[in-house]
Amino acid sequence: VTPGPEDRPGEFETIARLLRPLADRPEARGLLDDAAVVPSRPGYDLVLSKDAIVEGVHFLPDDPLDTVARKLLRVNLSDLAAKGAEPYGYLLAVAWSERCGWPEREAFAAGLAEDQARFGLTLLGGDTVSTPGPLTASVTILGWAPQGRAVSRAGARVGDVLYVTGPIGDGGLGLLAAKGELVGVSADAVTRLADRYRLPAPRTDIAAAVLAVASAAADVSDGLLADAGRIADASGVSIALELERVPLSAEGADWLASRDEREGRLWLTSAGDDYQIVFTAPPEAPVAFAVPIGAVRDGRGLTVLWRGTPTEPPRRGWTHR
Amino acid sequence: VTPGPEDRPGEFETIARLLRPLADRPEARGLLDDAAVVPSRPGYDLVLSKDAIVEGVHFLPDDPLDTVARKLLRVNLSDLAAKGAEPYGYLLAVAWSERCGWPEREAFAAGLAEDQARFGLTLLGGDTVSTPGPLTASVTILGWAPQGRAVSRAGARVGDVLYVTGPIGDGGLGLLAAKGELVGVSADAVTRLADRYRLPAPRTDIAAAVLAVASAAADVSDGLLADAGRIADASGVSIALELERVPLSAEGADWLASRDEREGRLWLTSAGDDYQIVFTAPPEAPVAFAVPIGAVRDGRGLTVLWRGTPTEPPRRGWTHR
Repeated sequence: VTPGPEDRPGEFETIARLLRPLADRPEARGLLDDAAVVPSRPGYDLVLSKDAIVEGVHFLPDDPLDTVARKLLRVNLSDLAAKGAEPYGYLLAVAWSERCGWPEREAFAAGLAEDQARFGLTLLGGDTVSTPGPLTASVTILGWAPQGRAVSRAGARVGDVLYVTGPIGDGGLGLLAAKGELVGVSADAVTRLADRYRLPAPRTDIAAAVLAVASAAADVSDGLLADAGRIADASGVSIALELERVPLSAEGADWLASRDEREGRLWLTSAGDDYQIVFTAPPEAPVAFAVPIGAVRDGRGLTVLWRGTPTEPPRRGWTHR
Repeated sequence: VTPGPEDRPGEFETIARLLRPLADRPEARGLLDDAAVVPSRPGYDLVLSKDAIVEGVHFLPDDPLDTVARKLLRVNLSDLAAKGAEPYGYLLAVAWSERCGWPEREAFAAGLAEDQARFGLTLLGGDTVSTPGPLTASVTILGWAPQGRAVSRAGARVGDVLYVTGPIGDGGLGLLAAKGELVGVSADAVTRLADRYRLPAPRTDIAAAVLAVASAAADVSDGLLADAGRIADASGVSIALELERVPLSAEGADWLASRDEREGRLWLTSAGDDYQIVFTAPPEAPVAFAVPIGAVRDGRGLTVLWRGTPTEPPRRGWTHR
């Protein structure tokens, strides 16, 4: 149903009713100014990341808009966590599709409000427009890292250990579950996996621990193998990843039990949307919060090992076009 | 023509071939990192603004993509100029539509490269995705302003003079010209106006002068009356704007010559996309670079005066939904 003209919220009404309450810091200037003004923070660098989502590409058309908004914040928070940065604020651009009347916009804003409070963010500015196409939104997130210490992808050194901060593969299984295409696990597991896909948990809780030990890090958004491979490429090293050591959730292990283990693990580690952190750290670093899954070696690129023998993955991760 | 699959550039190829060359500062980390790391600049605040554009809403489907990219940077640069901020860098999110193969993406990147160089910007990061809908893009622009001195919309004081930095109305006439709907001016004037609509000139050249004198400022993106009205609202004052003092271009004056002057001027000052700066300054401030067009008074809201008498505009500016 296309809402009538009287139901079409305008830009200024949308800002005044829904977004201004989210802009609760003086830096946002009450969203009255077309710009935010962020004072320098001595001893800290500003870490900025920007991710965009499109309905039908990055989320499903029937996903509730409060979770869509929360996921948009969370994928950006995941980028901050991988740099070891502390969340600060964000700018938001939304192109509302024709179906977005007041109830849809209110749901979207309620999702933002909930996760702002949860993760310590504030809305700093942005833009709201309309589109004849699918709902499209982008967030530019800002965080603080101690001066010169933000973790990069490029710092892995030969001899480092490769770690991952939690279960891998639930993002891929969750997408299947959300589309009603996941078989071989219980109905409860389908629900839990779909929920994790719709609302991932970015690892902001261990960003400080990553900052303390990591030589290189990335969040697992495109698939563990793809993201580990990019650390290898950016660092100019080789990474050997031991497939059987990659941690799985209970649901992932259930799904795997009825399949060829090597093929199933290759699928799980090539799917995206996990939002764990994959990182390298020197062997002497104390790392109690993550699971060792490989090693950094001389050479170039990622080698996937299955019980000690190199194996070739059919695909390495999602490519968003 | 929908390009075949082999012509569909992937995200990583687009970044590697077209965007990485634009990220020429270490803060961008070669776009390898999902995040930019910007050191604090002692004595300066970071000014951030974010604008989005949608094909068919903010630009015409047959507009060349190099000028679309340049206009996207320029509307954001205009926001910086109104704050008195010096351009520094930007993050970019693009959702490529199906028609965007390599030639279209190359044109877009070439436009970015040209205006980056012209305005002293560098690409810091962002995201590139695809969309089944219209081409959609947003820029988050960053600039520097001396600590505590970025000009806001909220600082106008009773007794201040209202100024505008150049001709008003060419954006609205230019949109008509670009759509082939402008009559009553020469063919040359149609071309010049359409060019100004497609490629506005943000007033970064006088940002420092605005910073030196302005008590409040905004760029003229939604229409002079709307943007002046928002200064009045944000500042809690009344602004009286003298319609006959608003400067026009030669083309605008030509167009006006064949119409009722009051109605024509109301139309020109209610159209958008001019990207001049409207600002207030104390009467004693030396302002040689802008034209006085009104005064700040006690009270609330904007009053439009035509030869000394209040007149009611039929519309105050564009509302992007």
